[in-house]
Amino acid sequence: MEEIRVGMVGYKFMGKAHSHAYHDIPLFFPEVPRLVKQVLCGRDIKDVTRAQKQFGWNEIETDWRKLVEREDVDLLDVSAPSNVHKEIVLAAAANKKHIFCEKPLALSLKDSKEMLDSVTKAGITHMVGFNYRFAPAVKLAKSLIESGRLGKIYHFRGLFLQDWIVDPAFPLVWRLQKEIAGSGSHGDLGAHVIDMARYLVGEFSEVIGMSTTFIKKRPIAEGMIGLSGKCSNSGQYGEVTVDDATAFLAKFANGAIGTFEATRFAPGHRCTNFFEINGSLGSVRFDFERMNELEVYFISDAADVQGFRRVLATDAAHAYSGHWWPAGHTIGYEHTMVHEIVELLEAIGEGRQPIPNFYDGVKCQEVLEAVEISVAERQWVKIEHEENQE
Amino acid sequence: MEEIRVGMVGYKFMGKAHSHAYHDIPLFFPEVPRLVKQVLCGRDIKDVTRAQKQFGWNEIETDWRKLVEREDVDLLDVSAPSNVHKEIVLAAAANKKHIFCEKPLALSLKDSKEMLDSVTKAGITHMVGFNYRFAPAVKLAKSLIESGRLGKIYHFRGLFLQDWIVDPAFPLVWRLQKEIAGSGSHGDLGAHVIDMARYLVGEFSEVIGMSTTFIKKRPIAEGMIGLSGKCSNSGQYGEVTVDDATAFLAKFANGAIGTFEATRFAPGHRCTNFFEINGSLGSVRFDFERMNELEVYFISDAADVQGFRRVLATDAAHAYSGHWWPAGHTIGYEHTMVHEIVELLEAIGEGRQPIPNFYDGVKCQEVLEAVEISVAERQWVKIEHEENQE
Amino acid sequence: MEEIRVGMVGYKFMGKAHSHAYHDIPLFFPEVPRLVKQVLCGRDIKDVTRAQKQFGWNEIETDWRKLVEREDVDLLDVSAPSNVHKEIVLAAAANKKHIFCEKPLALSLKDSKEMLDSVTKAGITHMVGFNYRFAPAVKLAKSLIESGRLGKIYHFRGLFLQDWIVDPAFPLVWRLQKEIAGSGSHGDLGAHVIDMARYLVGEFSEVIGMSTTFIKKRPIAEGMIGLSGKCSNSGQYGEVTVDDATAFLAKFANGAIGTFEATRFAPGHRCTNFFEINGSLGSVRFDFERMNELEVYFISDAADVQGFRRVLATDAAHAYSGHWWPAGHTIGYEHTMVHEIVELLEAIGEGRQPIPNFYDGVKCQEVLEAVEISVAERQWVKIEHEENQE
Amino acid sequence: MEEIRVGMVGYKFMGKAHSHAYHDIPLFFPEVPRLVKQVLCGRDIKDVTRAQKQFGWNEIETDWRKLVEREDVDLLDVSAPSNVHKEIVLAAAANKKHIFCEKPLALSLKDSKEMLDSVTKAGITHMVGFNYRFAPAVKLAKSLIESGRLGKIYHFRGLFLQDWIVDPAFPLVWRLQKEIAGSGSHGDLGAHVIDMARYLVGEFSEVIGMSTTFIKKRPIAEGMIGLSGKCSNSGQYGEVTVDDATAFLAKFANGAIGTFEATRFAPGHRCTNFFEINGSLGSVRFDFERMNELEVYFISDAADVQGFRRVLATDAAHAYSGHWWPAGHTIGYEHTMVHEIVELLEAIGEGRQPIPNFYDGVKCQEVLEAVEISVAERQWVKIEHEENQE
Repeated sequence: MEEIRVGMVGYKFMGKAHSHAYHDIPLFFPEVPRLVKQVLCGRDIKDVTRAQKQFGWNEIETDWRKLVEREDVDLLDVSAPSNVHKEIVLAAAANKKHIFCEKPLALSLKDSKEMLDSVTKAGITHMVGFNYRFAPAVKLAKSLIESGRLGKIYHFRGLFLQDWIVDPAFPLVWRLQKEIAGSGSHGDLGAHVIDMARYLVGEFSEVIGMSTTFIKKRPIAEGMIGLSGKCSNSGQYGEVTVDDATAFLAKFANGAIGTFEATRFAPGHRCTNFFEINGSLGSVRFDFERMNELEVYFISDAADVQGFRRVLATDAAHAYSGHWWPAGHTIGYEHTMVHEIVELLEAIGEGRQPIPNFYDGVKCQEVLEAVEISVAERQWVKIEHEENQE
Repeated sequence: MEEIRVGMVGYKFMGKAHSHAYHDIPLFFPEVPRLVKQVLCGRDIKDVTRAQKQFGWNEIETDWRKLVEREDVDLLDVSAPSNVHKEIVLAAAANKKHIFCEKPLALSLKDSKEMLDSVTKAGITHMVGFNYRFAPAVKLAKSLIESGRLGKIYHFRGLFLQDWIVDPAFPLVWRLQKEIAGSGSHGDLGAHVIDMARYLVGEFSEVIGMSTTFIKKRPIAEGMIGLSGKCSNSGQYGEVTVDDATAFLAKFANGAIGTFEATRFAPGHRCTNFFEINGSLGSVRFDFERMNELEVYFISDAADVQGFRRVLATDAAHAYSGHWWPAGHTIGYEHTMVHEIVELLEAIGEGRQPIPNFYDGVKCQEVLEAVEISVAERQWVKIEHEENQE
Repeated sequence: MEEIRVGMVGYKFMGKAHSHAYHDIPLFFPEVPRLVKQVLCGRDIKDVTRAQKQFGWNEIETDWRKLVEREDVDLLDVSAPSNVHKEIVLAAAANKKHIFCEKPLALSLKDSKEMLDSVTKAGITHMVGFNYRFAPAVKLAKSLIESGRLGKIYHFRGLFLQDWIVDPAFPLVWRLQKEIAGSGSHGDLGAHVIDMARYLVGEFSEVIGMSTTFIKKRPIAEGMIGLSGKCSNSGQYGEVTVDDATAFLAKFANGAIGTFEATRFAPGHRCTNFFEINGSLGSVRFDFERMNELEVYFISDAADVQGFRRVLATDAAHAYSGHWWPAGHTIGYEHTMVHEIVELLEAIGEGRQPIPNFYDGVKCQEVLEAVEISVAERQWVKIEHEENQE
Repeated sequence: MEEIRVGMVGYKFMGKAHSHAYHDIPLFFPEVPRLVKQVLCGRDIKDVTRAQKQFGWNEIETDWRKLVEREDVDLLDVSAPSNVHKEIVLAAAANKKHIFCEKPLALSLKDSKEMLDSVTKAGITHMVGFNYRFAPAVKLAKSLIESGRLGKIYHFRGLFLQDWIVDPAFPLVWRLQKEIAGSGSHGDLGAHVIDMARYLVGEFSEVIGMSTTFIKKRPIAEGMIGLSGKCSNSGQYGEVTVDDATAFLAKFANGAIGTFEATRFAPGHRCTNFFEINGSLGSVRFDFERMNELEVYFISDAADVQGFRRVLATDAAHAYSGHWWPAGHTIGYEHTMVHEIVELLEAIGEGRQPIPNFYDGVKCQEVLEAVEISVAERQWVKIEHEENQE
């Protein structure tokens, strides 16, 4: 394959972040397969044309059905809202396109399994957008765990805290409507924490959770721009049909235990995607608001100088650092996307599946749904662990 | 009452901390009722005599039954292990002594209720040792919440993390034996977090938890000195019968939700008694390892300078600060005990019950036990909320 | 002007960072004048060709003398080593090209003044690369000071700490040779701190400094790749002819005082470009290793909640944030370059001089040189303050 | 000597802190020589009687001349204002009393040398109150340096920042009057930083400084209570005759260089007594506002986990920790005084001089005065280093 031609559905927050990644990869990762920003797809021709020009795509489409059939597209990037993921993925798989789908894979476990089946049968490359795995500091945590330097893992403690809907006057945007968003903070934020736990600790065995909606009615919105954009207010109120916050307890297959919390009602936290892991030989701690740092503790340190180290993951010893800047020069949010798509391109080039792929999307959905069932049924819910498939 | 004569059972960690508080109160709080370190009580006459001399007590007893009957004792301080609390308290109440009992009040909810009944009927002053309430930074959190400056409370996130038994070679000390300690990290550490949540957020309505014991067998110990003391090892192994870690979810009567975790398996955490509270108008955050600080966030701050403030609670505006040192000069762990006993002495002087008293001890025990039941029965357990008694 | 065609000399660290900025500006700042990466210039045809392809430049040159005369170049970017800045700038000015020159402007105050004269006479747009001004957190500090929210400024405390040459076996790279680099940590790092102080506090009135070279001889290097790259070692030693560390005291024209330190011998500091400013109404604090944050303190905060706030400068209220990601999603080092060049392009579009321009380069050089004289003569050195020119 | 009977002049801030230390030492350090709080001395009989009762002293004197002659006093504690130190010390030495004198030893180098001579000739034990040396975290820094674990020392960076006189309406208290206080922030705060540098790095070789007084006139005060106490205002203004801020550069005898700054005009800093030390093998960092912590960095850490460790100096491996509480339970400001006096009592018991003693007081005064001369004469001032005496 000479070069990989991308067709992308969606051009808002994720579409912008992915466009940037496609745009920058050749500069910083010249060794991965060449890609072309071939077709950008969106329903509103005016908006998509403006986005095409700004982000540098060659052509546009306004119907994703046409996009998935185009000969000049090798890789389909699904950055559209979650409720249309499944339909697009199935069609793309049918057309033998490689697929990069944003998280959450689907609105239900059943749908996500169907999607995994379809891409598996089609024999294409598939990836799901759990971008936080690709922060160098997270890669360092992974490396410490995999190499055994933290020992046996005992605890996972994960949080995703935001505060953008604390104001009761904030309107009823689509993310607060179950029919479009599927769930609230649980699926939007909790999904990332669950994936991080699977990545770093391993598979879940059972969960029990609680959910709550603090503000039950909100002004009906007429439009929304961006994640934190303010909307014009129609004067009428509608019901919030998703969770404002969800927390759950988890047991892992390897004996570790975990606590999880996702909320949009934590004033002062713009984007605290946090985890701490305690093992028999040490601990690590990460906060996305300081995404270049990993705090690391080893019990083997000399008795008088034991303490968490603040490691700035920009040294030569850290993942990806050689591609960017000298030590001490930090990178930002968007770079996680760059690394993620580098993994995808390398996988396509090497004829293997990237990590994380749709299997990880399904496993995450499995936990999300188990938590939802546990909330509804007020009891622990087991998660089947298919030993072979991993 | 001219002066309050104290009789104390126990002279180890808590006995030392309480002795110090009695010793220092006259210097820093000369306005509270005078107290006398009258009688120190312990079973080993040699040890208790040594402690008497070191800590400056007038006399000793080796049998607490005699102590509780002494005419020259007004206030009984129960700093003995938890499994003897009940018996001593009932006898002290029968003798109309005021009682200061360390937490947890008892090994069961039933016992703690019986203790509350006995002190209530005896008409004496009673206090339970939840000392962390008395850090000035915690008092600041309380003041911000009570005055409405954090708005409606949505979230409580509480942790008590330690790491002193991570080593599997650490012996089977009494704190790891259910018959003496009652429970492990749950009762020892979790009790403090539960009390903090009740103090700052309010009553619990239901809970569900999970417990685990990571190291199931340990070398049998022949002795132990202090919390982190190493013991000589007999070469034989015994079973750990308490939890190494317990986590639980909680719903509060006022609609807030909470997550709780107590563990002794968190390397790098010597004594992380942490909480964060999110309300509709702001957030607060506390970590006992930096006990002079409270992090505070207000949504009403100007849009360009919003962020958590690190408040050093040593200013004139903070509780107790006038009694100690100029602003910026921090205090330590032991000072929480001083403040706690100042509250007790003031309450005795004013003829009122101190806060927290045995009622708070019972309410804490209620939550501890509900969590234990939820673990055993694998389901949510409700906590009755007696509106009137509060 | 339809579009601005750039010709750049240099393709190493700075060349890469500038290339990226030119590459990304159209995606994130579509409203600024269009630019074209027209010609990349370097002496080694093989290397420059490789860089051209990687960074996406249209053409190459191997002689900057030809570059400055090309008709298809509107803006000349001087990212070559400092010792050739002057010659290129004078030639570019003679050819009426706009100029973007990396700091330090020149190796001497005299040269930098000559450069300022030449660009002024040529009537072209000129900018100097003090990129740290363009971190949103620094812009916030500027805004707080300019609007008077910090009151009268009393103190500036500036540090630039690195640790990449602590190892005595690190070779004698060009940055350690006076004839090429001009000076050591003083000109390389201290220049940034001096510019920051001028930007935020104002003009200097006098200085006195000290310099030292801790490791006086180093292995002679045969080549070097990047800032922290290791070199092959010839087995011979040569003399380090620049300062390893320089510190100085300063008085500002407005009565404030400042302390400055630049060193490459501070283990643990990869790139600590730090400042703190204290004014009569508040303080601010910045550390480039956490470049998205500004710590802010106001004396007007309520008495019980006074403390430094950690402001994450990614909110809608912060400079540039609307161009990037939602609140809480941080940016990295390279973004300072993007913002810097956006200022340059806007200035060209609006027919004004950008800030900082060559005048700022000269003023910085003036302070650098005054410090060097003060070190040599062991006495305070005054800095003339030309009231009119500002 | 059976027990050491103390006579103390002064009962305000320092008198209170010392009283507490004498009071608590027997509880926590039972192994050091016994002491008796024998006589408290102050001019105002009413105030000193109140203090005597509160702090538990056996008797009082209102004239220090009588105190120094009393047979029942073995150790004289000079906690009176600096301008009377000399007279009292000379008299106490003449009466062969051991002496514990608060810093600064005197108002001039000449006086301090005279004091050192007198105690040396009298053959008594003498100590000066540089209490910050006795924080366990500082002891850890000392131990790391002495054992060579930081390698050769390159940099000392010391600050003492306060903010209690930022308000121009704050009155002209005695600390702002040269005839009583000797100097302003330089002698009050800078003295501590200079002593810390001598303790950890070694002797100074030369210095140059600058001083400024930001607020030159203040309301005349009629009284003052405590460090930050507000005074009634007479409506009249008087001149501030001391420095508000002093900064200086220093070279050490061992080749290290240092920067120093002391100010009372740093909003947000209640008591930031900070230092950082960089050596060839690592770095340490201390901030008194978090006095239980030392940040430590080693260049020998594995390449992927290099970073400053936050060491909580409460472990068994840390100085004094066995005397206090379990790991993770912090201590406060006052404990530095306890440790300091423990050193004094042990020295008396062992018939040796404690560290720091009057020699250290003189050496500190030498640096303070050299800085003052350098400010007045605008040039570097050398400090003679008497090799033999150390």
